[in-house]
Amino acid sequence: MSRKTNKSRIHTSPFSRRSLPGSAPGTLIVDPGSPKPSIRVMAYDQNKVVEKDINDVQAIKEYLGKWPVTWVRVCGLGDLSVITKLGELFNIHRLALEDVINVHQRPKVEQYKNHCYIVVRAVRLQEEFASEQVSIFLGKNFVLSFQEQPGRYFDPVVDRVREGKGRSRTAGPDHLTYALVDAVIDGYFPVLERYGEALETLEDAIISQPSGRFFEQIHEMRHGLLALRRAAWPLRETTNILYREPIPLIDAEERVYLRDCYDHVVQIIDLLENYRDESSGLMEVYLSSISNRTNEVVKVLTIISAIFLPPTLIAGIYGMNFAHMPELKWLIGYPFSIVLMIMFTVVMVYYFKAKGWWS
Amino acid sequence: MSRKTNKSRIHTSPFSRRSLPGSAPGTLIVDPGSPKPSIRVMAYDQNKVVEKDINDVQAIKEYLGKWPVTWVRVCGLGDLSVITKLGELFNIHRLALEDVINVHQRPKVEQYKNHCYIVVRAVRLQEEFASEQVSIFLGKNFVLSFQEQPGRYFDPVVDRVREGKGRSRTAGPDHLTYALVDAVIDGYFPVLERYGEALETLEDAIISQPSGRFFEQIHEMRHGLLALRRAAWPLRETTNILYREPIPLIDAEERVYLRDCYDHVVQIIDLLENYRDESSGLMEVYLSSISNRTNEVVKVLTIISAIFLPPTLIAGIYGMNFAHMPELKWLIGYPFSIVLMIMFTVVMVYYFKAKGWWS
Amino acid sequence: MSRKTNKSRIHTSPFSRRSLPGSAPGTLIVDPGSPKPSIRVMAYDQNKVVEKDINDVQAIKEYLGKWPVTWVRVCGLGDLSVITKLGELFNIHRLALEDVINVHQRPKVEQYKNHCYIVVRAVRLQEEFASEQVSIFLGKNFVLSFQEQPGRYFDPVVDRVREGKGRSRTAGPDHLTYALVDAVIDGYFPVLERYGEALETLEDAIISQPSGRFFEQIHEMRHGLLALRRAAWPLRETTNILYREPIPLIDAEERVYLRDCYDHVVQIIDLLENYRDESSGLMEVYLSSISNRTNEVVKVLTIISAIFLPPTLIAGIYGMNFAHMPELKWLIGYPFSIVLMIMFTVVMVYYFKAKGWWS
Amino acid sequence: MSRKTNKSRIHTSPFSRRSLPGSAPGTLIVDPGSPKPSIRVMAYDQNKVVEKDINDVQAIKEYLGKWPVTWVRVCGLGDLSVITKLGELFNIHRLALEDVINVHQRPKVEQYKNHCYIVVRAVRLQEEFASEQVSIFLGKNFVLSFQEQPGRYFDPVVDRVREGKGRSRTAGPDHLTYALVDAVIDGYFPVLERYGEALETLEDAIISQPSGRFFEQIHEMRHGLLALRRAAWPLRETTNILYREPIPLIDAEERVYLRDCYDHVVQIIDLLENYRDESSGLMEVYLSSISNRTNEVVKVLTIISAIFLPPTLIAGIYGMNFAHMPELKWLIGYPFSIVLMIMFTVVMVYYFKAKGWWS
Amino acid sequence: MSRKTNKSRIHTSPFSRRSLPGSAPGTLIVDPGSPKPSIRVMAYDQNKVVEKDINDVQAIKEYLGKWPVTWVRVCGLGDLSVITKLGELFNIHRLALEDVINVHQRPKVEQYKNHCYIVVRAVRLQEEFASEQVSIFLGKNFVLSFQEQPGRYFDPVVDRVREGKGRSRTAGPDHLTYALVDAVIDGYFPVLERYGEALETLEDAIISQPSGRFFEQIHEMRHGLLALRRAAWPLRETTNILYREPIPLIDAEERVYLRDCYDHVVQIIDLLENYRDESSGLMEVYLSSISNRTNEVVKVLTIISAIFLPPTLIAGIYGMNFAHMPELKWLIGYPFSIVLMIMFTVVMVYYFKAKGWWS
Repeated sequence: MSRKTNKSRIHTSPFSRRSLPGSAPGTLIVDPGSPKPSIRVMAYDQNKVVEKDINDVQAIKEYLGKWPVTWVRVCGLGDLSVITKLGELFNIHRLALEDVINVHQRPKVEQYKNHCYIVVRAVRLQEEFASEQVSIFLGKNFVLSFQEQPGRYFDPVVDRVREGKGRSRTAGPDHLTYALVDAVIDGYFPVLERYGEALETLEDAIISQPSGRFFEQIHEMRHGLLALRRAAWPLRETTNILYREPIPLIDAEERVYLRDCYDHVVQIIDLLENYRDESSGLMEVYLSSISNRTNEVVKVLTIISAIFLPPTLIAGIYGMNFAHMPELKWLIGYPFSIVLMIMFTVVMVYYFKAKGWWS
Repeated sequence: MSRKTNKSRIHTSPFSRRSLPGSAPGTLIVDPGSPKPSIRVMAYDQNKVVEKDINDVQAIKEYLGKWPVTWVRVCGLGDLSVITKLGELFNIHRLALEDVINVHQRPKVEQYKNHCYIVVRAVRLQEEFASEQVSIFLGKNFVLSFQEQPGRYFDPVVDRVREGKGRSRTAGPDHLTYALVDAVIDGYFPVLERYGEALETLEDAIISQPSGRFFEQIHEMRHGLLALRRAAWPLRETTNILYREPIPLIDAEERVYLRDCYDHVVQIIDLLENYRDESSGLMEVYLSSISNRTNEVVKVLTIISAIFLPPTLIAGIYGMNFAHMPELKWLIGYPFSIVLMIMFTVVMVYYFKAKGWWS
Repeated sequence: MSRKTNKSRIHTSPFSRRSLPGSAPGTLIVDPGSPKPSIRVMAYDQNKVVEKDINDVQAIKEYLGKWPVTWVRVCGLGDLSVITKLGELFNIHRLALEDVINVHQRPKVEQYKNHCYIVVRAVRLQEEFASEQVSIFLGKNFVLSFQEQPGRYFDPVVDRVREGKGRSRTAGPDHLTYALVDAVIDGYFPVLERYGEALETLEDAIISQPSGRFFEQIHEMRHGLLALRRAAWPLRETTNILYREPIPLIDAEERVYLRDCYDHVVQIIDLLENYRDESSGLMEVYLSSISNRTNEVVKVLTIISAIFLPPTLIAGIYGMNFAHMPELKWLIGYPFSIVLMIMFTVVMVYYFKAKGWWS
Repeated sequence: MSRKTNKSRIHTSPFSRRSLPGSAPGTLIVDPGSPKPSIRVMAYDQNKVVEKDINDVQAIKEYLGKWPVTWVRVCGLGDLSVITKLGELFNIHRLALEDVINVHQRPKVEQYKNHCYIVVRAVRLQEEFASEQVSIFLGKNFVLSFQEQPGRYFDPVVDRVREGKGRSRTAGPDHLTYALVDAVIDGYFPVLERYGEALETLEDAIISQPSGRFFEQIHEMRHGLLALRRAAWPLRETTNILYREPIPLIDAEERVYLRDCYDHVVQIIDLLENYRDESSGLMEVYLSSISNRTNEVVKVLTIISAIFLPPTLIAGIYGMNFAHMPELKWLIGYPFSIVLMIMFTVVMVYYFKAKGWWS
Repeated sequence: MSRKTNKSRIHTSPFSRRSLPGSAPGTLIVDPGSPKPSIRVMAYDQNKVVEKDINDVQAIKEYLGKWPVTWVRVCGLGDLSVITKLGELFNIHRLALEDVINVHQRPKVEQYKNHCYIVVRAVRLQEEFASEQVSIFLGKNFVLSFQEQPGRYFDPVVDRVREGKGRSRTAGPDHLTYALVDAVIDGYFPVLERYGEALETLEDAIISQPSGRFFEQIHEMRHGLLALRRAAWPLRETTNILYREPIPLIDAEERVYLRDCYDHVVQIIDLLENYRDESSGLMEVYLSSISNRTNEVVKVLTIISAIFLPPTLIAGIYGMNFAHMPELKWLIGYPFSIVLMIMFTVVMVYYFKAKGWWS
């Protein structure tokens, strides 16, 4: 059940909300299931922070240009008119706006004339793995961010701005952009940690008692790691561009922070590939344990046959109806036959012990 | 049956229509099975659109140079004289013309003196996967496109030009070329979507009840994904060249659109590789389930042997003809032997339950 | 039998004709089994073609420099003195001459002071796959080509020169060189086609009735594809160099033709890799079918045991010699026991049908 | 048991000491389990060496700038205030300081304004594989090194400085940095050597008597090699940067030594990949031996059945109660039946010998 | 036995002679098992050759600078003082000298101020695969070569110099260096040839009669190919550097020869990878044949059971002791039962023939 939901996220949705094939570039079609956008403005300078929930997009004009940094934070993409008005207000290219709504973009950086458009994917692993597109527009004195859902991963950034710790209020919108990207990237670590723990648990379980249901679990885990990988790999290139390429809107001083971001992504990918290697190893462990299991079953079968066939033959022989079978008249004929049977059995058991089949 | 047709498309045709080995470069040999070409001209400026079906190639001259953009759309490649005349009219290099007819080119961009030649492959998945070569010549004031079959994938572009939405009529032939390439690329998404759904269905089916026929289905799916991959990978390089390299006939302003095209191709390849990984995973699931199945069969065999061999031995023993076998005279000898048999069976069953073999 | 010959071509010959390890660079040692060289000169300008079989190398001097293009075509490498004289006449570097005779070079382009040396491999698949080294020297006004065997793959080029079609006589020796390389490359397509057909036939055969002999066939096919790959991959780099790098002896106008050559090689490699992927898939199909087969055999074994063991036990029980067995005295004892046996068998059959093992 | 510890090092710890997701960049959170830092200063010039254990960070000021090289060696990261004071004293960037404490960095080189920050990982294989982060700051006249644990791998460097051998005292802090990195890299060789020996031992053991427990050993070894690989690969890039890129603080003369370092890392990776290949080969050996084993068990089962079924049938036949069975009255009937049984058995044995199943 | 020696070469020795971890760079520790060095000087100009065995290193001074080329050939590395004196005489960097003695370097080229240091590995396959480090120092008028053992692979070079064939005496020390490297590379071909032959023999043997011992042979062959690969791959980069990079001590004219060297290495690697692919294919053949074998064994088991179980049941039925069994009184009861048994057997045999199991 939970599986299905997970998979439909990965397989199906990439297309369900897409504009129809062949529609004009920049056609905006909103996913009807998407939550209505809520807009919150946070404007600050070194001394002061102003925060306000906004209903009318035009109200943002009050802040823009009056503060060194105005952060417009949009959660939910379910109202086309709001998105369009924001696009007009911030003078955003139609193609970029299309990408904001078609929430299946790969992480990327795109430079437009008067803003820089950054796409990253925030990940989450509660019951199942899920990822969400986060779009960030960095302008001269604003940051405009779009989230699919009201998520909590930007809360630490909000808190830092409020408290004015470190460079959080003295630096410009480029630093805020860095902080947002960094917050998203930091969210990958707990997800990885949970995969790491799950791997360890599974490994111990498989070695102690292999069973078919582990196969499905490994398969599902690899499924999840594959999806995580799809989100993380392009993030590497994205942060690399942010840190290396000369983007006018990003201050040189900020690069050392973005390099740190890039470092984290490399570390994430490193761990990810490690887990993928280990999950492959786990699959091998599983397959090998199944193989061993078959081997063991066949061994038991062989031993059972080997123990019962010789006595059965002996019993058959003394069940023959020949007129002249001296043993049949012996007083100890019956015990003798039983001893014979036991002897054969003992020989067989010794033979298999010598072969190492008798565990 | 449907399979065969599919495969013959992939395996055999690349050669069936090729010019003979060693023939002169630029030799044009038309595939006799190809439909006769139908030509439709669409000429437009900002204010007006003219559309006309053309029988005589010379009639195109009326439009060329008189309109900012003249789109000559050819469907079907089955008449050599028509193709040759078009080649002469638009001054197209023999080698490029040869590639138009030999419809097994990899997607590519080639720059000639006065035109730019673009090859892409349109894909389709109805009963089976099929791909078709689309050749586009971009000139100073014309676009000349060749399709193998009358397909509907250019219809949205036609509609947009007719309605004059967005930049569709204000921009030059480079924008039309972009629109055509974009329309072809958009056609990949529904195909991918169907593979995605098929993967999901197959996965559920295999896990719930594995059977040999799934193997063939996975194999066929991988076959199709392989063919799709052959079409999509070179498309990546093609769109990358269009967007990055300075092609004189393409306006700088158009690049942001071509970058979007490139983005889509990257997304297609990303999904494609994802599906390929998942289909490999599916194969593993299948093979593992077969392995489990053998294991289970052997287990049943072992259990049957283990249950029947001991009682059979006991029956054999009391079937021996020894003169002196006290049990045979016992009044409860017969029930005693039956109880003995049942006891052995019960012990065996317990043993296998302890081993976890008795499901 | 035919297999061996094939393999000895691939494995053994690379060394059998090599000069001894440590011999001086440029040492020429002729393979005694190689046919004696036959030399044919073809000189032409726009108006006229002269062809002549030559016995004495010195006779070539008559043509060199007097015609815009003189093509000296050597078939067979079995006479050292002839090769050496040709080397002297055309002023060819000793190392290049050594490579002409050691016919196991990888395709390559090497520029020397006054000529350009091109090695390609011509392929053939009659009973078995075989490849042959073709050496081409391109000079200012000559082309000197060496073939191991008198092969027919240059015939279309000869015919075109004779008929003077297209650019074949107006262009210089660089065009002739292109034509020769193109003729060799065109020869790869029929070979690929045959592999494609063989793959298809094999696939159908394996799916309908798997058997061990298919394994050998797949193995042999992969063997052949591997050998073909060894010939084709370096050809890619070779044609790429010819088309991209500024080689003084090759006219800029010729590049568009060489780009076409390169395109063909890329297409060949594309198909080749496709076939290799498919042959791997075939191997999987085969292995999976063997696995299924074992599974089926074990199932039959299980069913036979399950059907015969219970009646055998019943027969054993009524074969016991207890003095007090009421059934033995029953009038319907015998039919009763038979019915009992049949009942058990029917139960077993139903059980296996329910499990889906009874096909 | 020991396994668990090993694994928890690899899986779990990367996150356990990490600062919380979303915390401000440069937030320093000390791992409470980390040992308290001990600081030792070693200052030297060509003539003299001074060594002292330091409790108060300020005492370092006495040495800095007064000696050509001052090496401040910190073992243990368990006291935030000490680390912070060192950071202030040496003017170290907050992000670099964060990386010192978050001991799960990949090896890297980072250049800051007035120092160069190098991270490497020291490895150890006693009962289990473990790695430790070593941070080295190279400044104009100082080297500041941080180790997680008091380890002995820097002892040879200390000794060489004390004895003033070679260039150890005449060269600057760049040479000391080289010596430290080299000492860490040298520590990889004994670890590799132990893996090499273990591989050899395992291989012999598996071939002579395969068993399921080897599987776990191979799996664990691959686990370890994977972890070693994660430490070694980025070290390659790190040393490559040190040796190739123009870092102002590193003298040109020192490069030849750093190239040697790089060479060693390449050699380590070479061996590592070799061992990984061999461990894969070992897995194949193991799986093949299991396969052989199953084969052998099934063969024994077949032989047992084949030997006992025919005599059992014969005994059954002569146990039938037909009134008219002439053999039953024969005087030699009984021995005749036994001979018949033996004959069948002998025929079977010969048959299996001919098939090569009777080893 | 021979195996062990082989493996110890590959696994163990890389470390046994290494200087201790952490020892100073350039520390020279001689392997006590290494043979004592023998030195032979060969000095020549165009007209004359002088050869002499040298005991005292100082005696070399007589030749150095007096002849255009002085080749000092050292065989054996077992005497530290001799090596050190040579190092001083030729002014060789300590690190290079360390590499000469630590005979486990990867092939490489290193340029020092007044000499160029080249490491290559000579290979040999007699009973087992072995490789040996060859160090070559190229100076302005000298070549200094170090071999681990007195090997014969330089003999052809010596002979050519003595006879003054070709450029062997007219060219400078760069040509001699080329000749030495070429001689070492030529030594790879016979080794490859032996692997090629072994592959062919093994393949035929496995197909005709698979057995477990082939597995070990394939495994050992792959082991050897892996070791050969480790020697050959870096050789490729080494020769590429020699031929492409501008090394002052190597004349431009010599490059065409070094390109030939590089070509040979590429050819070696090509063959090597080919053999590795084929050995993987062989492994597949082997595993598939084992799989087939198990299949066959199980089939025989099934057939035996199927043939003997029904008659055994019939015999059991007529062995029952019912008072009323009419058949028992029949005169033809006994032959009737035998016919019944045979009938069942025939039916079974037909069934299995129809299934294709009866070969």
